[in-house]
Amino acid sequence: MHTLDKAINLIPISPGRFRGETSSDYENTVGPFGGITNALLLRAIEMRDDCFGEPLALTVNFAGPIAPGEFEIQASPTRNNRSTQHWSAHLLQREEVQATATAVFVKRRDSWSSNKAPALEGVPTPESLPRADTEGRPPWFSRYDMRFVDGGMEVMAGGEQSESTTRMWVRDDPPRPLTYTALASICDSFFPRVFLRLGRVMPIGTVSMTTYFHADGAQLQEHGDRHLFGVARGVNFRNGYYDEAAELWSHSGDLLATSHQIVYFRP
Amino acid sequence: MHTLDKAINLIPISPGRFRGETSSDYENTVGPFGGITNALLLRAIEMRDDCFGEPLALTVNFAGPIAPGEFEIQASPTRNNRSTQHWSAHLLQREEVQATATAVFVKRRDSWSSNKAPALEGVPTPESLPRADTEGRPPWFSRYDMRFVDGGMEVMAGGEQSESTTRMWVRDDPPRPLTYTALASICDSFFPRVFLRLGRVMPIGTVSMTTYFHADGAQLQEHGDRHLFGVARGVNFRNGYYDEAAELWSHSGDLLATSHQIVYFRP
Repeated sequence: MHTLDKAINLIPISPGRFRGETSSDYENTVGPFGGITNALLLRAIEMRDDCFGEPLALTVNFAGPIAPGEFEIQASPTRNNRSTQHWSAHLLQREEVQATATAVFVKRRDSWSSNKAPALEGVPTPESLPRADTEGRPPWFSRYDMRFVDGGMEVMAGGEQSESTTRMWVRDDPPRPLTYTALASICDSFFPRVFLRLGRVMPIGTVSMTTYFHADGAQLQEHGDRHLFGVARGVNFRNGYYDEAAELWSHSGDLLATSHQIVYFRP
Repeated sequence: MHTLDKAINLIPISPGRFRGETSSDYENTVGPFGGITNALLLRAIEMRDDCFGEPLALTVNFAGPIAPGEFEIQASPTRNNRSTQHWSAHLLQREEVQATATAVFVKRRDSWSSNKAPALEGVPTPESLPRADTEGRPPWFSRYDMRFVDGGMEVMAGGEQSESTTRMWVRDDPPRPLTYTALASICDSFFPRVFLRLGRVMPIGTVSMTTYFHADGAQLQEHGDRHLFGVARGVNFRNGYYDEAAELWSHSGDLLATSHQIVYFRP
């Protein structure tokens, strides 16, 4: 079993209720890597018998600290339409809500399509770039094969930067066929924008994160286990919060997901 | 009373529960303008006695059609921390959930701050631009004084476009001091990106919308009732859904809010 599948493995315990356990593989500096919390809440919804279609939107609010050990997730439908399902989910530990999620699942249909940005133009192949150094990084960092095109962690050594954009190739390590849960997790795999901007590490924590899934199942399958191309940038830094906007592109130039998060920081 | 305040006027009926009525002033082609639904759900949370701080993040999921007439909103705390509150809210009509929201409120504190993008450089003043024509538009359109810098509705006459960016000055009409609820509504005031891209009107509906409030109360007050500068673009159009990313800047160049939405369309 892949480390990701182990980390998001959930046991049904009653209708819509699941039990899971935190994974030391995806530990962050404090608590679990946020991407895994994203993936877990999405997974709980997917596992419900009455869930149909594919995810379109997922918002996760990080409400409290998740401690190592067991947790439960309750996933409930909020509204069912013909081709759209609205969901709500809660991650509970010590009888307290530690994370909440809302999600929308849809039955996709063909339509006129366009994704404009030529993100991959002039970008070196992942094979031509060195893998990011995982030395001194929290465990989850080693679960991803990251290859920085620019704005990598080594830039931090140069102190304060005017830019907060990182472009990188990224995939699960070991490689794993892309699924919505894997994509939900990868969307959170950019190191914090404020580290890049200020050239140093500091306490941070995602408060809320929203992911839009643009890919249909066929596109995920076509992408397989190859590297995704990711772009992330910080837009605004103020009063102890900043936001990150991220795009995840397939190897062949399809925009698979966009995500946004607002993050607490203490400089 | 300003039309916006009338539209978001809520009557407490029991703890955390409020009654409101749809406003014909903010009608859209079908149902109410989404910005008002955003503002209403935020307003219900603000009105709770136990609500502290200022909004940081708001996600609204549009689950079903809101009919003209009365509705109720239930707003409940999900988790209280020392300086952060997590909220959940539901808009109900005909005993069904028509919209859901999650929100995070925070006590802001000073920190190192930066907002990079020089969005206002070279932009003509609102006074030097004509007001957008409201002829043939749904009622809500007239509640905003919009002045297109580029990517205005007149561009649609030229048929399919390669760009989906609109830049405009926008404020409530009549002018009204800026509040978080007003800002939540204004974030949805860009006409649909797919109309611009395909050069024609078609059925659309926002499925989910997230707003990050970067402004603190002092910045809102400083901005007052002047025009905001807004930029919106569509990122990806596929399988009947597209997303819009929007930025709202103060008159003096502070980034007040960023918002994102994923929208259903039927070309």
